[in-house]
Amino acid sequence: MKFLRRCATAVITAAVMSQPVLANRTPADYVDPFIGTSNFGATHPGAQVPHGLASVSPFNVAFGYPQLNEFEKDEAWNSRVYIHENQFFTGFSHLNLSGVGCPEAGVINLMPTSGDLSLAPEEYGSTFSDQQASAGLYNAHIDKYDIDAEVTSTARAGISRFRFSPGRNHIVLNLGLALTNETGASIRQTSPTEFVGSRTLGTFCYNPEDVRPVYFVMQLSDAPDQAGVWKQMPAYKNVEADWVAVNDDVKTYPDYPYPLHGDNIGAWASYNADSAHTVSVKIGISFVSIANARKNLEQEIPAFDFNSTRRQAKQAWNDVLQRVQVEGQAADKTRFYTALYHTLIHPSIFSDINGDYPITGGGATGNASVPRYTVYSLWDTSRNVHPLLSLLYPRTQSAMMRSAIAMGRESGWLPKWELYGMETNVMVGDPGTVMMADSYLRGIQDVDIDAAYKMMVRAATQADNNLLRPDAADYLSLGYVPYDDEGPYDGSVSTSLEYYQADFALSRLAAKLDKPDDAARFANQAQEFTRLFDPATGMLRPKNRKGEWLSPFDPELGKNFEPAPGYIEGNAWNYRFYVPHGMQTLIEKLGGPAAFEAQLDKTFATDNFDMANEPDITYPYLYLYTPGGFNKASNKVAALRDHHFTTEPGGIPGNDDTGTMSAWLAFSMMGIYPLSPGEPSYAMVSPAFDRITISLDDTYYPGETLTIRRDTEASRITFNGRPVTGAFIAHQQLIQGGTLVIPAADTQE
Amino acid sequence: MKFLRRCATAVITAAVMSQPVLANRTPADYVDPFIGTSNFGATHPGAQVPHGLASVSPFNVAFGYPQLNEFEKDEAWNSRVYIHENQFFTGFSHLNLSGVGCPEAGVINLMPTSGDLSLAPEEYGSTFSDQQASAGLYNAHIDKYDIDAEVTSTARAGISRFRFSPGRNHIVLNLGLALTNETGASIRQTSPTEFVGSRTLGTFCYNPEDVRPVYFVMQLSDAPDQAGVWKQMPAYKNVEADWVAVNDDVKTYPDYPYPLHGDNIGAWASYNADSAHTVSVKIGISFVSIANARKNLEQEIPAFDFNSTRRQAKQAWNDVLQRVQVEGQAADKTRFYTALYHTLIHPSIFSDINGDYPITGGGATGNASVPRYTVYSLWDTSRNVHPLLSLLYPRTQSAMMRSAIAMGRESGWLPKWELYGMETNVMVGDPGTVMMADSYLRGIQDVDIDAAYKMMVRAATQADNNLLRPDAADYLSLGYVPYDDEGPYDGSVSTSLEYYQADFALSRLAAKLDKPDDAARFANQAQEFTRLFDPATGMLRPKNRKGEWLSPFDPELGKNFEPAPGYIEGNAWNYRFYVPHGMQTLIEKLGGPAAFEAQLDKTFATDNFDMANEPDITYPYLYLYTPGGFNKASNKVAALRDHHFTTEPGGIPGNDDTGTMSAWLAFSMMGIYPLSPGEPSYAMVSPAFDRITISLDDTYYPGETLTIRRDTEASRITFNGRPVTGAFIAHQQLIQGGTLVIPAADTQE
Repeated sequence: MKFLRRCATAVITAAVMSQPVLANRTPADYVDPFIGTSNFGATHPGAQVPHGLASVSPFNVAFGYPQLNEFEKDEAWNSRVYIHENQFFTGFSHLNLSGVGCPEAGVINLMPTSGDLSLAPEEYGSTFSDQQASAGLYNAHIDKYDIDAEVTSTARAGISRFRFSPGRNHIVLNLGLALTNETGASIRQTSPTEFVGSRTLGTFCYNPEDVRPVYFVMQLSDAPDQAGVWKQMPAYKNVEADWVAVNDDVKTYPDYPYPLHGDNIGAWASYNADSAHTVSVKIGISFVSIANARKNLEQEIPAFDFNSTRRQAKQAWNDVLQRVQVEGQAADKTRFYTALYHTLIHPSIFSDINGDYPITGGGATGNASVPRYTVYSLWDTSRNVHPLLSLLYPRTQSAMMRSAIAMGRESGWLPKWELYGMETNVMVGDPGTVMMADSYLRGIQDVDIDAAYKMMVRAATQADNNLLRPDAADYLSLGYVPYDDEGPYDGSVSTSLEYYQADFALSRLAAKLDKPDDAARFANQAQEFTRLFDPATGMLRPKNRKGEWLSPFDPELGKNFEPAPGYIEGNAWNYRFYVPHGMQTLIEKLGGPAAFEAQLDKTFATDNFDMANEPDITYPYLYLYTPGGFNKASNKVAALRDHHFTTEPGGIPGNDDTGTMSAWLAFSMMGIYPLSPGEPSYAMVSPAFDRITISLDDTYYPGETLTIRRDTEASRITFNGRPVTGAFIAHQQLIQGGTLVIPAADTQE
Repeated sequence: MKFLRRCATAVITAAVMSQPVLANRTPADYVDPFIGTSNFGATHPGAQVPHGLASVSPFNVAFGYPQLNEFEKDEAWNSRVYIHENQFFTGFSHLNLSGVGCPEAGVINLMPTSGDLSLAPEEYGSTFSDQQASAGLYNAHIDKYDIDAEVTSTARAGISRFRFSPGRNHIVLNLGLALTNETGASIRQTSPTEFVGSRTLGTFCYNPEDVRPVYFVMQLSDAPDQAGVWKQMPAYKNVEADWVAVNDDVKTYPDYPYPLHGDNIGAWASYNADSAHTVSVKIGISFVSIANARKNLEQEIPAFDFNSTRRQAKQAWNDVLQRVQVEGQAADKTRFYTALYHTLIHPSIFSDINGDYPITGGGATGNASVPRYTVYSLWDTSRNVHPLLSLLYPRTQSAMMRSAIAMGRESGWLPKWELYGMETNVMVGDPGTVMMADSYLRGIQDVDIDAAYKMMVRAATQADNNLLRPDAADYLSLGYVPYDDEGPYDGSVSTSLEYYQADFALSRLAAKLDKPDDAARFANQAQEFTRLFDPATGMLRPKNRKGEWLSPFDPELGKNFEPAPGYIEGNAWNYRFYVPHGMQTLIEKLGGPAAFEAQLDKTFATDNFDMANEPDITYPYLYLYTPGGFNKASNKVAALRDHHFTTEPGGIPGNDDTGTMSAWLAFSMMGIYPLSPGEPSYAMVSPAFDRITISLDDTYYPGETLTIRRDTEASRITFNGRPVTGAFIAHQQLIQGGTLVIPAADTQE
């Protein structure tokens, strides 16, 4: 109840603040970056450009003050730099993840203050008000200091503009305060207006091994009256404590010309002003070097021209968002374009403006003419984000595929959960294979598929020391992963299902590449899921090496994210129908379409459907296989769409998972959905708009425009005037261009 | 009592350990580096070369364990990396100061261990035994791990050789543990056998402003089986504490290829060995850059040839020590050569092997062909260390003068207490002027004296914003520094006395440079000390701006280093006769030679003489002005020499003050002493040796050899056969070479 009340408050605030009234609104004008900033959506309202590495987000998760900051970052497994309910603002962080489930980044915090200089964020933090956020722009009033702050971004840099009142004003850079659980930074003042340094990141999802620095260059528009670097000093003891000038407090080093290192350090610049004045601060970042951070900054934001950068950021969003034009209600447009916006944040550009990028798994630097991407949360995104990118932005998806193949060349394996050049190995399965095969089969073929194929086959067949499929030996010999050696976050059934899916996608790719033996082999492997089907319970049930079912067995266990043997992030119900390539087999085993529909109904009725996590998000579409068919599927999709996805800050049902929840919404509002990776087709339900017009990329696709119409008069689905047979339409058909007419669902049914 | 017992224990240990029995002992063989390592001498037994920047010293002052480590570094104002009584060894530090009074440096700690890897020094520390130290070499047995450790050094690098037993052995580099009160470091593994980084130093004498990094490169002789960097992680709270892999403990980063920063970080390398094996570790340092540290290391210690470096270090010591040959008892030779050794440690070479050095007071780098020196503790060393260097090593003294002038060009002021390129402004007065004028007048004139003279005049005449003489305005207008605005460590009388002395030296230099007006002006200023002579007490007494004496006035206050208005590090008695250029005037004011002698006697009788601090250390020589004359002076000097300076670890009466106490002993054992800076002459007393033979530097001095003979038969002092009139002999005479015969003092008198 308490939680709901806060959400309700937030709704009003977001609605009031985020949407300027415009006569002629562009797609970017519909984006509401506050959506997803409550209810654990883990998006942030900060300024960013599509697939930008840098972003500039308000940071308000430090320090748990009752009433003021109810959610303290360390009180939970908190993956958010910004929580809409929180009121205690401590600056703008310049490297942020969007919609992830683990704490990381949230570093390079920049705070404007005034009055006596304070360098302790618990002191210098402030409430903020009048927040406004749009695509590429965020601004707020910082109450304690009467400062108006605006921030915008490019791909690798951010610029902030602070409007100060007369008096003594400060810019504080804090390299201690962060969301990441790693520590350590370096800072150096290189001129009256420039500071450079690095901040260590890492331990994503509490994996202690994945650690690396991000480099930055900060430049000020105006030379300060005083500036320097600072460091939190330790608590000295004994006689030392009497003598040291700074004990257990922040020490300042004015005009310090050397690099300063420490766990909790930063910089500051002070201005004494007789009148109100504006100071702008540019920060460029790089994962390669300080020199590259400076190049990124100076090329992307050459001058302290805030408005120009802001306009460019908005234009960058319109350039991508306008590929899809929708006709419908404003609130639906807000939901749709914000969802599309959220799918276009990660993967992020990793390479510097000169093409340099960090080679995976080591300290070396590579250089390439195509952009290198990072932040591949593939267990999530292989399902629908990459299919969405493949349809709408095949050029971008091609670059992401090439990045993934390059990573595989460097490390030997395609990525699974790649973060800033590190394979974090978070979650299970082999989703790189799924992503790669699916995209290639959709027609994005300007990649070195032979190299990729070898990596995929390695992952599918190497029994021992298999980085991507640590359970390959058992899987290959038994046809499933037994629960015998299962760790608390392994999930033997979940892992098996992911392997089946990857093998299915790989078999389709093998067929496409004219490798019939491989195709048959992997297709057979993919069908082994039946070994886990338990006729007694109708569930995909954990089995041990001897072939015995896990017993006792509670299919509901895991519903609330408690550990459940066999399943990761879910329970047996959530994973029950998760064999998209084997639905006909599963349906038969469950007693045919009607019996299957009853079980589907039961899933929803017993609250065993989780809209907030990936394994079961396709389930409303599964009515397409049942007597309920198109109408039931359409109505279920629409109900979930409207219940879970709103224009409120809590308008994403949980972690956006680097756009996966949003991609579900975007596809679902367009009335098409990729149900089975490796099968380049879309399930169809009634769209949320009367008309959706997609501009197809003519480099990849023969058609120019694909229009999807919701027709209240139509009785069946047609494409370019011809009836479509079945519930699915091939990707290869749609990319020819034309008009897909989908009836409005009969809500009476 | 407790303290004395410990000293007694230490005596035995030092005597047993430090002196190998050699048939033909060179001067270096007489050096006992344990002398001064107890009784707050603050020297260390580590390996070093003359004026070397680097040294490799055992570090045993961390963690106060009863019985084991009685002296914990933070329990007192502790300036020592090594205390002879302490038993808990935590590694070898590679940048150390010798004989200073404030904590600083003691960084880059290298520890060999074995068994399970521990990176917490309170755990991995060990007792040590079989310590041996000689000039350029230290070795010990590390008990806990059965490791034999030997270390030696060059000017800018150290090499350690560790003999491990079979098993799992480790090299641990700790950049957290240090004597300095600054924090913060950087480390990066650059190859299987190389680590580079930096460590922040500073806050010498608790001055928070003087901070800077030292850079280093560490190379291992053998590729380890496992290696990486490490960092102390903070104490996480709340839910984070449950999840982070390392909470409030050390985290390891194996094979981490990036720079790692933090308050408490380091590196380690592990070896798995089936048999006993040796690993050598080289560490080069630089105050300019990591690249220069590598150049220093690779040029000074090109191979892992420990024995070659050790031989070079000893040879370097013999090259300088053999300039003085003494004939006498072995224990006296030990006292003398160890004293000479201690005078040849600071100032230290600051420039890198390629000539690069940090420009004073900023982050810029200069380059010069002559070595740049650092560590100028001039309030101490201007008295006797630089006169000693001027006599024995004029080439070195010339380079030190040129370094000081170069610092003046960079900062505008000659140094006062310059440390690693920073003017720390510790202590009072204008001792740079004293050192410069005195050395020039002794004949070291291959320096830009015109430039130096301008700096000296600036310090002597600039009323406001005078860095060296902050009390110049009052001093110039009143003729003394009044006590009105005195801070707790200013000492208005002490400061005035230092200014008079500097003005006297400057007046003599002005005369030498043919500037009669300046000479007269500064000579007059130097005589103003009479304004502070209080006929009522016979003391040099604090006076305020109105000309009123401080009242009440206790001339004994300050005896135990408690704050005493008017005096710094002493009381009125200690400063009573501290006008070496004005002794005749003072003696008259005190009632003539006999009355003066009575007051001198009273000084010693009432325990108001302090052998352990500089202001009064010339007082035994002042009997030369009294009826007691040569015999009384000689006997007093001999008594102090033998009482306070021994071959024991406690054999220096207090802080060696970068060689000043030791220079007192060296001069006093040679029977000559420079009483008054600016007057290039020596007071003479009976030497401690039968014969002292000094090889004069023929570049600077006309003579080849100066011999000083103690002649039990002689009744008066002669030089080259001619009687010497008075108690003093001119430097210009001695450097002509020849034989100075000094009678043995009549101990009956």
